[in-house]
This record gives sequence, structure tokens and C-alpha cells, in this order.
Amino acid sequence: METELSKKLGVEHAIFGFTPFPAVAAAITRAGGFGVLGAVRYTAPDDLKRDLDWLQAHTDGKPYGLDVVMPAKKAVDGISEADIEAMIPAGHRAFVRDTLAKHHVPELAEGEASGWRITGWMEQVARSQLDVAFDYPIKLLANALGSPPADVIRRAHDHGVLVAALAGSAKHARRHAEAGIDVVVAQGYEAGGHTGDIATMVLVPEIAEAVAPLPVLAAGGIGSGEQIAAGLALGAQGVWLGSLWLTTTEADLHSRALTAKLLAAGSGDTVRSRALTGKPARQLRTEWTDAWDDPDGPGALPMPLQGLLVAEAVSRIQKYEVQPLLGTPVGQIVGRMNSERGVQAVFDELTSGFEKAIDRINRIAGRRTTREA
Amino acid sequence: METELSKKLGVEHAIFGFTPFPAVAAAITRAGGFGVLGAVRYTAPDDLKRDLDWLQAHTDGKPYGLDVVMPAKKAVDGISEADIEAMIPAGHRAFVRDTLAKHHVPELAEGEASGWRITGWMEQVARSQLDVAFDYPIKLLANALGSPPADVIRRAHDHGVLVAALAGSAKHARRHAEAGIDVVVAQGYEAGGHTGDIATMVLVPEIAEAVAPLPVLAAGGIGSGEQIAAGLALGAQGVWLGSLWLTTTEADLHSRALTAKLLAAGSGDTVRSRALTGKPARQLRTEWTDAWDDPDGPGALPMPLQGLLVAEAVSRIQKYEVQPLLGTPVGQIVGRMNSERGVQAVFDELTSGFEKAIDRINRIAGRRTTREA
Repeated sequence: METELSKKLGVEHAIFGFTPFPAVAAAITRAGGFGVLGAVRYTAPDDLKRDLDWLQAHTDGKPYGLDVVMPAKKAVDGISEADIEAMIPAGHRAFVRDTLAKHHVPELAEGEASGWRITGWMEQVARSQLDVAFDYPIKLLANALGSPPADVIRRAHDHGVLVAALAGSAKHARRHAEAGIDVVVAQGYEAGGHTGDIATMVLVPEIAEAVAPLPVLAAGGIGSGEQIAAGLALGAQGVWLGSLWLTTTEADLHSRALTAKLLAAGSGDTVRSRALTGKPARQLRTEWTDAWDDPDGPGALPMPLQGLLVAEAVSRIQKYEVQPLLGTPVGQIVGRMNSERGVQAVFDELTSGFEKAIDRINRIAGRRTTREA
Repeated sequence: METELSKKLGVEHAIFGFTPFPAVAAAITRAGGFGVLGAVRYTAPDDLKRDLDWLQAHTDGKPYGLDVVMPAKKAVDGISEADIEAMIPAGHRAFVRDTLAKHHVPELAEGEASGWRITGWMEQVARSQLDVAFDYPIKLLANALGSPPADVIRRAHDHGVLVAALAGSAKHARRHAEAGIDVVVAQGYEAGGHTGDIATMVLVPEIAEAVAPLPVLAAGGIGSGEQIAAGLALGAQGVWLGSLWLTTTEADLHSRALTAKLLAAGSGDTVRSRALTGKPARQLRTEWTDAWDDPDGPGALPMPLQGLLVAEAVSRIQKYEVQPLLGTPVGQIVGRMNSERGVQAVFDELTSGFEKAIDRINRIAGRRTTREA
């Protein structure tokens, strides 16, 4: 599965795997794909350094990348996290308290850190991550929120690192292209995490045309070899898969109950909700997302307030595995994530499924094929 | 573009074109596809007879089909259209009046019929359509709302007619299969008209697996050769296109203003709204859909009340081409419907685009291909 982009990156298969877990990223790279480590949870540079050391030692010299969350909009100077905290209405805090109380969610112990902090989303944290990352031979730097700032793009290019950015519309993709990025990840409505409302089938060719000749990766709804073939048929130079790895044995969700929920969920069990960050993000539908999406409730606050508001609550829900509220970002392909397997087995199924899909489509097209030498 | 299903139907390309316009259906069939005439607007059997006569005379003996709207649920005996009319709350009628008045929509002249009547959706009307249709050599009978009743399926099979039904989830598709239908149209979130919220990329393989070995058609988001290749790669035995034909020269929308709106719309200019029928249906987003989707408004009534409530209003909006309210069901591929062309030209672009997509995906897969003799 070879495209111009996969050749440029020196990767065997044009399958990009996004994951917050170093063991998953390393296994994807070792299997012949391109592992991309999500950096949002690394608020301490030393933690990122430790995991990049491990990744470098476990990828057999093969290529991998890093995904940061760097807001496109410049932070306002002199605004601290405490200032932002103060912007949260008391009624919203009460709603969080009441919802947790209704479900008897225990408090965290004194001094227990919240697992998900807004700081990971802030530019200065992302910049400190980059200071670490550029010491490693990363081949791709992806940004999940808009184009990275111009100096970051320059710095990446100076290090020979390609820059990718996610887009949910042709307009956003064009803005990325103008900013000088190298790869657009076209993230469709059915994807896990932040998405727009245009489906992958429509979005990928639209973005590919809008930013040509820049390469585009198809993201959203891709979890099988057939879906990879479809994504590539739409004009992409590769596919970007995030959800599929969540139920691999290398993934460390820290919650058997959450893994069980993912394994049991159908394609109709996700929702695009503003509950998690304030922007629409696809995730498991739970009583927690229902509470925020309820027209009779207070509704989610805008980013970044919502993330800050619910950070501690989400930690408590996860730690105590409070079933009705327990969720995670995941795409509609959760419906086919029905067994726990190693990354290599999942990857092998993707590549063999892709070959079968190519065989089938060639039969439909009336083509005989032979493998190139 | 040949599959088991296309061979069975005797059609050159596994491209199914749904349209309410006989001239479009005939042109699709003549081009080597399978034209499917939507019958919902034929409340008088003689009108359908006239148009089927015309279709039969203009399809060079090639195959075509008919699409009816037959509710799966049995009508309650003794309930008349007037009884149903009486179930509509006065507040909703006032909301229609006020919204039309706000936009200065003129009244219809005395005796002018409403273009869209609920009766087309009722079982007895659909049955009278079938009494006409089975006199013609139709090859496929599709139903847009659930499985047709068992006796209709039997009657179709007795005439050698395959029965298709649309589905937006694997559960619905399984129900169709159990009812004895022959073909499932997997209609994704991005499609025009009634849709669920699972995107085509995820829905098609899920339904194909759920109803195997029944053939599945991919619907939603398909308006180019690349998208056809993607739909087929997902495991479909053909593709089902509806929106794309709305801006062909053979289509008769009766409104230049509406055609202009379709040509100008982007992929983000549609909405899944209950405004038209009471069930979520994708359509152009307008001030009319906004009014019904407004959380501070009365909201749409359930099917069939909403359709009955708005039928006359929709006729008035269309007749007088009231710009801010003027809309039509259409899918997200409206973003690529940017020119008015004949069906043959559109069809040629689909088939040549498909061949190019196959060439490209084979290059990515490292296959050399030759055409079969």
C-alpha cells in the first residue's frame, strides 16, 4: 500500500495510526504502518521524554510521528488558568456536582491529580512538548486544532519534519494549505473526537481537490481493509485510524469496564457531543453526554471552559468506573471493535482485507491483475 | 461495472439512479445504468400509467424500476385523511401561517392543488400504483419506508420483480431480510431524504455483513466515479444515487430559483431535519428548516402529521419561489453539483471517473491490470 506520501515517510503501508499509548504507536510502526503518538496528556516534558525514549527504542528504526493539540488562536497574554476558571458560571459547577451526586460518584482522594487537564491544550504546553520532540527523529508533526503557528511549521521543516493538520471542511483545509502545512487529515463526521458534520465519503474528495497537490489522509469510519480501500479510492494518499486501536491488547485504558463498553458498543452508540471539550466531539453516548446535550440542562460551555469544568469529574468517573457515565472519544467504527487483539493481528487483518477488497473491486471493474515485481 | 446483481438485472453498470422524473430515469437506463422512477407524487393511477408508457417507450428495452413509499405499519381501519388532519394542534397551524406571513408567501389560487399530498404515502395509494406498475416490465420495486407487506413481496416475486428496501441501520436491514426482500439499499447519514445517523462508510459493510448473501447497494455521499469505487470497495453490489440527477437538464424541478440554489450550495448547506415529513430527512438548509428545528419553536410533528401540516405551505413556497424558504431533499454531494448537464454526460463522467479511481487504487496496491476480454 504505497503512495507518494508513504514513500516520502519511508513507510511500507500508508496506514497512519493515532494513539495516546506509546506501546500501540510502536507496534503500528513495527507492523509497517506509521504510528502517531498523541501528546495531549503529557503536561510534564520529562514524561514525554521518557515515552519518546521508549518509542525510539521499540520501533526498529522505523518512522513515527507526534500529535499535539495547539490552538490556532493566539492566547491572550496575561490570562492564567485561574482567570479562565473564574469564567465558569456557578450554575454549571452546580450541574456537574448534581450530576455526579445523582450517580454517587466518589470524590478523588486528597492530592490525587486530575487525569485530564486543560493545560495540555494550551500553546505553552504544546511548545514545551515540541522542545522535547524535536530531539527525536520524528517524521511527522500533526496538530489536532487548526494550523500550528508559522514559527512551529518553520521549525518542523528545519528539522525535516512534515506538518499535518486535521480538517473537517474544505474551507479549513484551504486555510491549512495557505499556512504552509504538508498533509491534511480529512476527518469526517463519523470519526471519533472532534469532527464536523460532513461525512468522510463527501469530505475526502472535496478536501483533496481543494488542497491539491497536497496529500490528504482519510479519517473517520475506517477500521477494515475494505474501508481503507474506500478511503484511498476517494483520492487520499493514506488513511488515519484512531478508534480501532483502543481495544488492542497494547492499549492501556486503565479501565476494564471501559474496554468492555467499547467491545459491546454498536455503531449507533456514539454521539457528537460538546460534553467533553465544548466543541462537537464524537464519543460513546452515556448518561453524562445526555446530561450535557439535554435541551433542558445548562448545555456545554465553549472551549476551553467546558474542558476545564469537567476535567475532575471525568477523572472521577473513570477512576471509579461509574458505568452509566463512563465514556471515551471513539468513532462509529466502534461497532466492529468486538474483540481484544494485539496490534499486529489487527494490522494484518487490515492489510489482508485491503488486498481482498482490491481483488473484489477489480472483478467488478472487469480487470485482471498481477502483482508488480 | 458488473456485479451478480447487475447481471441478474441485465444492466451494464451497477449504477442505480433514483429520480422522480421519467426523463431522467429513462436517460439513466439508456446510458447503461438502472433508472428507478419515484412514484410518490402519482396520486392518480392514470398519471403513473401515462409516465410508465413514456418510460417504456424511451428505454430501448433496457431495464428500469419503480420506487414506492409504502409504510411498513398497517393503516388503522376507518381512519380517514380528515381524521388525521384533525390531530394537528392549532398552535402548529398558526406557526405555519405566521412563518409564511413573515416571508410574505402568497396564497394559492382557488382550486389550485397542492403539489405534495400525504395520500401518496398511504398504503392504498401505493397499492393502486402497484396495480398499474405490474403491467409493465419493471425489474425492481423499491420501498423507501420499511419492508413492503408480505403479499406485495409475493406479488412482485410472482411477476419476476426483485424487491429492494432502504435501511439506515443493520437492525432495519435484518428486518428487511427476514421479510423476504431481495436487495437492501444502505442509506448513509450523508444521503438526501430520510436517513439515520450512521455514515455510508460505516453502514455499508455493516449491513452487507448483516444480510449476507443478500446484495447491498451503497447510498449516500455518492456523486463521482471515486465515490462509486469507494461504495463498491465497501462490499456493495452497486451504488444508489438520487441527488446527483436533480441538476441534470432532464430534471424538471419547476423552479429555476431552486436549481440555482442547488448549483450554488456547498456540502455544508444541508441539514437533517424533521421539517418535511416528521422523520429526519436531509435537505437544503433554509429559513423554513431553521424555523422547525428552532428549539424555541413548536418543533415538527411526527410522521404523517408533519407532512400533512406543511403540504400546502411547501407548494406555496415552491410555486412563488420564496428564496429564503425554498428547499428540497438533497444529500451532502450537493457540494459537487455545480453545473447543469445532460444525464448522459453526468453518467459518462461517473464511469470514466470510476476507471481512473480503479487505476489509481491499483497503483497504490502495487497491481498491474489488464482488461478482461
